Amino acid sequence: MPQVAVIPKPNAPVELREVPAPELEENSALLEVKLSEVCGTDVYLQQGRLEGVPYPLVPGHVSVGRLSEIRGTLLDVEGREFREGDRVTFLDVHRTCNACWYCLVAKATTRCRQRKVYGITYGLDDGLCGGWAEQIYLKPGTRCIRLDADAETFMAGGCALPTALHAVERGEIAIGDTVLVLGSGPVGINGIILSLMRGALRVLCIGAPDQRLEAATQVGASAVLNFEEHKEGERLEWTREQTHGRGADVTIEATGAPDAVVQAMRFTRDAGRVVVVGQYTDHGPVSIEAGFNPHLDLNRKHLDVRGCWGSDFSHFYRGAQIVSDSVRSAPWVALKAKLSRYTLEQANEALNDVASGRVLKALIAPEYASSRSQIHN
Amino acid sequence: MPQVAVIPKPNAPVELREVPAPELEENSALLEVKLSEVCGTDVYLQQGRLEGVPYPLVPGHVSVGRLSEIRGTLLDVEGREFREGDRVTFLDVHRTCNACWYCLVAKATTRCRQRKVYGITYGLDDGLCGGWAEQIYLKPGTRCIRLDADAETFMAGGCALPTALHAVERGEIAIGDTVLVLGSGPVGINGIILSLMRGALRVLCIGAPDQRLEAATQVGASAVLNFEEHKEGERLEWTREQTHGRGADVTIEATGAPDAVVQAMRFTRDAGRVVVVGQYTDHGPVSIEAGFNPHLDLNRKHLDVRGCWGSDFSHFYRGAQIVSDSVRSAPWVALKAKLSRYTLEQANEALNDVASGRVLKALIAPEYASSRSQIHN
Amino acid sequence: MPQVAVIPKPNAPVELREVPAPELEENSALLEVKLSEVCGTDVYLQQGRLEGVPYPLVPGHVSVGRLSEIRGTLLDVEGREFREGDRVTFLDVHRTCNACWYCLVAKATTRCRQRKVYGITYGLDDGLCGGWAEQIYLKPGTRCIRLDADAETFMAGGCALPTALHAVERGEIAIGDTVLVLGSGPVGINGIILSLMRGALRVLCIGAPDQRLEAATQVGASAVLNFEEHKEGERLEWTREQTHGRGADVTIEATGAPDAVVQAMRFTRDAGRVVVVGQYTDHGPVSIEAGFNPHLDLNRKHLDVRGCWGSDFSHFYRGAQIVSDSVRSAPWVALKAKLSRYTLEQANEALNDVASGRVLKALIAPEYASSRSQIHN
Amino acid sequence: MPQVAVIPKPNAPVELREVPAPELEENSALLEVKLSEVCGTDVYLQQGRLEGVPYPLVPGHVSVGRLSEIRGTLLDVEGREFREGDRVTFLDVHRTCNACWYCLVAKATTRCRQRKVYGITYGLDDGLCGGWAEQIYLKPGTRCIRLDADAETFMAGGCALPTALHAVERGEIAIGDTVLVLGSGPVGINGIILSLMRGALRVLCIGAPDQRLEAATQVGASAVLNFEEHKEGERLEWTREQTHGRGADVTIEATGAPDAVVQAMRFTRDAGRVVVVGQYTDHGPVSIEAGFNPHLDLNRKHLDVRGCWGSDFSHFYRGAQIVSDSVRSAPWVALKAKLSRYTLEQANEALNDVASGRVLKALIAPEYASSRSQIHN
Repeated sequence: MPQVAVIPKPNAPVELREVPAPELEENSALLEVKLSEVCGTDVYLQQGRLEGVPYPLVPGHVSVGRLSEIRGTLLDVEGREFREGDRVTFLDVHRTCNACWYCLVAKATTRCRQRKVYGITYGLDDGLCGGWAEQIYLKPGTRCIRLDADAETFMAGGCALPTALHAVERGEIAIGDTVLVLGSGPVGINGIILSLMRGALRVLCIGAPDQRLEAATQVGASAVLNFEEHKEGERLEWTREQTHGRGADVTIEATGAPDAVVQAMRFTRDAGRVVVVGQYTDHGPVSIEAGFNPHLDLNRKHLDVRGCWGSDFSHFYRGAQIVSDSVRSAPWVALKAKLSRYTLEQANEALNDVASGRVLKALIAPEYASSRSQIHN
Repeated sequence: MPQVAVIPKPNAPVELREVPAPELEENSALLEVKLSEVCGTDVYLQQGRLEGVPYPLVPGHVSVGRLSEIRGTLLDVEGREFREGDRVTFLDVHRTCNACWYCLVAKATTRCRQRKVYGITYGLDDGLCGGWAEQIYLKPGTRCIRLDADAETFMAGGCALPTALHAVERGEIAIGDTVLVLGSGPVGINGIILSLMRGALRVLCIGAPDQRLEAATQVGASAVLNFEEHKEGERLEWTREQTHGRGADVTIEATGAPDAVVQAMRFTRDAGRVVVVGQYTDHGPVSIEAGFNPHLDLNRKHLDVRGCWGSDFSHFYRGAQIVSDSVRSAPWVALKAKLSRYTLEQANEALNDVASGRVLKALIAPEYASSRSQIHN
Repeated sequence: MPQVAVIPKPNAPVELREVPAPELEENSALLEVKLSEVCGTDVYLQQGRLEGVPYPLVPGHVSVGRLSEIRGTLLDVEGREFREGDRVTFLDVHRTCNACWYCLVAKATTRCRQRKVYGITYGLDDGLCGGWAEQIYLKPGTRCIRLDADAETFMAGGCALPTALHAVERGEIAIGDTVLVLGSGPVGINGIILSLMRGALRVLCIGAPDQRLEAATQVGASAVLNFEEHKEGERLEWTREQTHGRGADVTIEATGAPDAVVQAMRFTRDAGRVVVVGQYTDHGPVSIEAGFNPHLDLNRKHLDVRGCWGSDFSHFYRGAQIVSDSVRSAPWVALKAKLSRYTLEQANEALNDVASGRVLKALIAPEYASSRSQIHN
Repeated sequence: MPQVAVIPKPNAPVELREVPAPELEENSALLEVKLSEVCGTDVYLQQGRLEGVPYPLVPGHVSVGRLSEIRGTLLDVEGREFREGDRVTFLDVHRTCNACWYCLVAKATTRCRQRKVYGITYGLDDGLCGGWAEQIYLKPGTRCIRLDADAETFMAGGCALPTALHAVERGEIAIGDTVLVLGSGPVGINGIILSLMRGALRVLCIGAPDQRLEAATQVGASAVLNFEEHKEGERLEWTREQTHGRGADVTIEATGAPDAVVQAMRFTRDAGRVVVVGQYTDHGPVSIEAGFNPHLDLNRKHLDVRGCWGSDFSHFYRGAQIVSDSVRSAPWVALKAKLSRYTLEQANEALNDVASGRVLKALIAPEYASSRSQIHN
């Protein structure tokens, strides 16, 4: 019986359980997990900050592993059949319906109400549907991608890579632009890499703590500023000094803090673009001190402010292609040194380390007993 | 000596003055004013709410009249030469530089720092540069348009027409969309007309007072709601009832009230567009009660929020074409009944009536002594 | 046993057959056909000009009728359940897979290789899958729309309406643009209506014969030219006279003739847009006389040339909403007078009349024996 | 008196002349030329293939030098004043009017009829207006850019860099796309570099001769094919093999050959984009063998075909920024080894070498007598 790590209910510690192996439906598969991610959303899940989560829950929405069993036929987007033994990852979003108004008329598939997400809105009662587990049950219709990259390189991007790709796409960055990234967590770091990949001339980063800003510099940021050591006015001043007094062409707000959304507008040049990315849980209103003045902060400047979080299959697919490319993958290969691994038993420790910002990226690596299976990259 | 109406300084009443007739530079002209507009910006000018206004000021940025004198050559965008006696209007924005970073690299000519605006940032010291006057001096480089529409039909649109056209363009309205317009002043009313002209299936309007909502209905709004009689929650509910529970595809915020910007986000469907239009003066921050929660109000919904005010020549030109067309002009022809005319001497009264919302659109019609000139449409 | 009209093989006349009533799968339905369309594609189907058509074939891809039987649950895009007796139409495209590279990465669902089309790529062996029949079998996953419009108004648009909507969307028509439509068949006529609905100031049409040009004028074209009476040079001259010598802002090529694609480029202003619409069968190369010179005809002018045919659900849905609206539907209500009705027995006559251009729009109206069913609008 | 190289009339060899030093107007300057380009357009100029060229002509539209004299004030787009001695380049396009329909309504400034181009539509009678000269007279309103890059690095891009940037912008390349570049001349090579800079995962190149394809590989092309050794069918096959059988996401046609425009369509996937770039002179029609079938080649595939040539200031400015950046400039620094220098006296030789494709990029480097001036990088 496969072992899983479970959040039994909000604010309760993660605990290990053994659950029955699933019976496979037609055109489904079983994935032996090699690595699964611990991201900020998992911290929120443990804190009970998301609505509609069906606890008990096995977290882990982005994972890599090996197909240990396939029943029926499993195809990739090229129409090629998967084989048992293949190394794959899969889009955490399942069951985008292709039948509702959002899917078919608005063409905003990320807003489909039917969609379910492995590790977030699929709970333990739905089956083996989270990555903090020895096995994941890939239900029929799950979108898998054969992975040429090694597991660690892929997970160095993790869910932050398609999320940041979504943001960079929304930002319509032009060759030669100056991009400002607020936040130096995984989404911020991936935002820096991808802004440069999209042609930004310079990428600035305001974040914390210093070791994350070092990572920002390592992946190509031209200049960084520690927001804990500089007040809003100083950050504005610093941004303007770097941008001929105008502000950034595009600002990507990846901190998740309400006030940062307003600051992002202030740090952006007239007629520029602000992308708010990643955060979709309730972090409260903009503070009175921040004082959002929409006509001065947004309208006088002719700004575009664009929200996004999550990703669709195109972002996930393109991200997987990039990290599988020998040239393009270089920034993520470099980030592998910053990954922290935890066993299933150490899941609570992993959550704490992510919550405190002590680690840049935490991964769960279920340790298989040698009698069960052998995973090779 | 032509007579002008002057705001001598902030918060002082308008007064009449006689000023010397200008000496024409090469490629400039003199316009005998038939009608000039009194818009909300003029109220702010009198209240001293805009920065950098060079008082004493002759207001009136959108005007119609007859070219009474031309020195040198004056061409329209088609390269046709203007003749004395032609009925024209002109873009209030002068001297967009075509040489700065905003003009040439960002291609955001509305953000050019060199631009000057007749009746707003050109003061009396710059010459006869406002429309509340018997004559306007059209400096070299002023962009004139020969007007086929009669003066009243054009002024029924006034500056609100190109402003609303800018907003509707920013909104990227698709055929079949449901558009919600917040505000029933001139920009709101023009926003309704132009949203329908762009293919909206239904346009909803939340505004006040009732006589303006009647105008909204008259120009084609499918449903209207008086915001003075319904709280935010009721307005949200009403909007959802009209939109299968989702909110509007596009919301145009044309009230100028800070809280309305946040409400616009809440009244819009996921992955929809919000256009904030018109207001660029300091009306203070969003209230504590409104409580802007950027991650719930904007980001969770994947919204686009786009600011704009003013217009560029393309909006002004297209607007002038529309009101000159026998079919397209119908809504503005109908609005002519709602115009209120004032003489130069009645300028203070006009400002009061606009400030109080008592009239939908006030126009200054300088009364020429018969010995000076005869204006015929 | 329901009666159907069948094209047994290419170039053979249509013949009537009786086929067994289908056994309904879960979540499928049976539609009693009131009206089904005869369009240009049906002529090509009879002539064998499309590849991969599974003859014998029951043509008729856009139809209106009444749900006579439902098995299981049938939902619309709002999630509302259909009931037996409802008047509906349905998207002819079935089984867009939502699983392939075109659907998920390119987001070009119209290019999905799995898609099947009722009346075109579903043959008689696939079941009751064409509209020239007393009944259509709506397979599970067919996208139905409840129709508020009466059947005739909807069919006055027919498949040309969503096709033209697709084209107009591709053309990104701006308020105030001048649009030139080449062709005055159903797609051309709908292109005129929708260009105006999208804000075109003027729509020109070059087509034939005169009665179709009269229809063009009736739906709002500002000026029309009979191409049979004017050579290419004269048409170019005429277009320029209407457009200050520049050419149209947007040209919609809806003739299906290869040379017209090149002429469309020549008739369009510099930096304008050309939309080629509708034709996707082999009509041969551009003629030597036309002499396509890509660097002069396209590149020197900085043109955008955009191809499209067919439509996706969004076009079909928006089209159905428009014709169901009391105000918006006016042009199609007017066109009802131009519909020609044929019984199933008269299908060959209908094809001939469409092929010759003798009628603007032909419809098949199966005549039910009174003992079977009664259709009321 | 400064020395210039002149094309006296079509098909006549270049000859040297001495011309009087210009008298500077207010806000103009004199540029001592360090390097000026010899590009394909110059070959056409010598062959008399462009219309409206005012011979005698001093060619050379992209040049680098030092400001030797300034009269009045010369500002860059940031509003900073230039000083004598500054190293600069300047946009060859002068006098975009900012007053015509194309500038103001269509916002297609590249299509302004008033624009003049140094070295192409400014002839010797207009003054010292070409770069194959010891000095260039920078008329008032010429848009200069202070150059941080060394002259050779900038000229390694030359006019092909902003042209290719224009094309890549038109191609809307997304991160992860596969781009196919047809042609391996300067525009093709720059197209490869910039497609990668914009996020293309893979760039394929079909060109000739082999040494240019080596340059293509050197700057990052994933795969190259010599078109002289492979027929159209083989090229199509090769492209499909590299793209899962679909064709490229974006194809940039930079050969200038009419048939290549049609091949570009065939080599591109359904719903992809084709950018035709650079060529705007008459190279004749598509050949009968190529047989452009618009409905199969373009429409069935839902292609976008977008023409462009030249560039506007934004492309030129962004290009100058890129080559001035220590990281971004790497590909052009590497290309410096492929530059071929010629003196003014060797201008005919330079033209021949460019016409034959013997050199990748030819530059004119006027040799100043030591008594006149000293140029240091």
